[in-house]
Amino acid sequence: MLRYGVVGTGAVGGFYGIRLAHAGADVQFLLRRGASEVSRHGLLLTSPEGDLHLPTVHVAARWAELEPCDVLIVAVKATANAEVLDQLARHAQRVVVPGGGVLLIQNGIGAEPAYARAAPGREVLGGLAFLCANRVDRRTIAHLDFGTLTIAPHVARAAVPLVTSLMQGIADDLAAARTGVLLDDDLLRARWRKLMWNIPFNPLSVILDATTDVLMADRHVVALVRTIMGEVMAAAAAEGRTLPESLPEELLDATAAMAPYATSMKLDADAGRPMEVEAMLAEPLRRSARSGLSMPSVAVLHSQLAFLDARPGPGPATGGSP
Amino acid sequence: MLRYGVVGTGAVGGFYGIRLAHAGADVQFLLRRGASEVSRHGLLLTSPEGDLHLPTVHVAARWAELEPCDVLIVAVKATANAEVLDQLARHAQRVVVPGGGVLLIQNGIGAEPAYARAAPGREVLGGLAFLCANRVDRRTIAHLDFGTLTIAPHVARAAVPLVTSLMQGIADDLAAARTGVLLDDDLLRARWRKLMWNIPFNPLSVILDATTDVLMADRHVVALVRTIMGEVMAAAAAEGRTLPESLPEELLDATAAMAPYATSMKLDADAGRPMEVEAMLAEPLRRSARSGLSMPSVAVLHSQLAFLDARPGPGPATGGSP
Repeated sequence: MLRYGVVGTGAVGGFYGIRLAHAGADVQFLLRRGASEVSRHGLLLTSPEGDLHLPTVHVAARWAELEPCDVLIVAVKATANAEVLDQLARHAQRVVVPGGGVLLIQNGIGAEPAYARAAPGREVLGGLAFLCANRVDRRTIAHLDFGTLTIAPHVARAAVPLVTSLMQGIADDLAAARTGVLLDDDLLRARWRKLMWNIPFNPLSVILDATTDVLMADRHVVALVRTIMGEVMAAAAAEGRTLPESLPEELLDATAAMAPYATSMKLDADAGRPMEVEAMLAEPLRRSARSGLSMPSVAVLHSQLAFLDARPGPGPATGGSP
Repeated sequence: MLRYGVVGTGAVGGFYGIRLAHAGADVQFLLRRGASEVSRHGLLLTSPEGDLHLPTVHVAARWAELEPCDVLIVAVKATANAEVLDQLARHAQRVVVPGGGVLLIQNGIGAEPAYARAAPGREVLGGLAFLCANRVDRRTIAHLDFGTLTIAPHVARAAVPLVTSLMQGIADDLAAARTGVLLDDDLLRARWRKLMWNIPFNPLSVILDATTDVLMADRHVVALVRTIMGEVMAAAAAEGRTLPESLPEELLDATAAMAPYATSMKLDADAGRPMEVEAMLAEPLRRSARSGLSMPSVAVLHSQLAFLDARPGPGPATGGSP
């Protein structure tokens, strides 16, 4: 199996990291806080598919303590990218071995080029988690549903093959960890596809303070979601990524069938953490503008969220890890 | 002076009614609730321009008790129009004398034709209150700032002169009551002009749970307000009402200079009362669609408000008076 490092041991990084480690992979977890607690008591993943306890965890309290690995999984919120990129630029050559890479599991679009610049000579992969999970405390992740990870290459040079051996290696390890994985050859299309759900549901869940089931029960909201999805569809098409015409209705049907779900952005807002406004809304708006399109409904959501994001939140500003 | 009846003794109806009565006009107040309390203790208008106490109030507890008058001031929320129109259709011929009229002081657009149908042969006037006031309790109105009333005719027949003698009579009485009044000859333009402020600020104050000063302090919100005002400007122009190009900036400057202000829609939302979603957003959207235009940002606000309006509110659903 490959050797992994996990930067950002939240719900997403914790879920995949614990699964891989439980399956036998060497996984280091970078923990700025709670390192000694996790070292003593281990990590716990509760799940309807069976709880997993890692009694012995390979912990690094600082970037300088990370040992060389094949795959550095970066699973931080997009709001933490600047800080992580700064550390990565200093440590990538030592931490990620030649032939290895960085797997960025994150919402939004367009962050991979900066990761490629921070880790020259290392492969950069984009990861899209279709996962419902929460971090309960510093050593416990609660898996609620789903879990499939889509992995696609950020192709900086045309010479890189589209499904790389590194991608295949990660897929093999995830399969050994009984975790769904999809290898995609078009990162941009995969990101737009995920944005088609994220752009309407994440902001509306915050602005209207509602879980997905409550949103789906209101015909005005469903009509608005359709309008927004149409704008995203057009913006994706303008970048040469034509998504299936049936996708909006499929996503609406899937959302209606989901258990009541607080989006990741709503969890951030409720906890007083910064929201992924830039990566999830501002960057798609800039891209559509460069394509000569407007996304007027998305622009309204962006303005509203930017306002709410700048407001003092109700909860403590804890910040993610790291 | 003219004889007045006031239907809807909230902040707006109470303010103008008390001012007119204090200046010596015969003013009947229709009060479904609190009639005996007001009869015993009178009405009170607190104001930075000096408090006014009406110890003796001409009260009607039901429409059937209203005595004939020259001007029936209807100052209910647009959400109460159906109920008021039903009563008006039954009582207009007796309550409003020939040559008299109905003055509808209300937000939104397009309600006057129904009032004209409910009161055939009576003049219908539209009133637009530029007023900050709250009802404190059943007998007390707090005037905070401003107060000018714009009055314009709903012209059902071309033979009616544009500034009618009834309009002039009301203006004279308001002047005697030291209350600003503007006579306008274009009701539709006046309503679009007021909507240019109401359509952005009322919904955003509810959706973002903020007073005007907080909204104006955020550059994203101000940019969104400009976009919305542009959509309203275009919709008004499509109905032949070209508003001054400078109006949006003037309104923004005036709003920035205002004392922190909770909009009427926010007061409704906070009290758990229905919001004027139909009159303030749905009807303008229908009108712009009939003109072949879209107002995409307004459509988002409409969907969001319709969702919030349908949600169980935090306060008791008291309903306005009557």
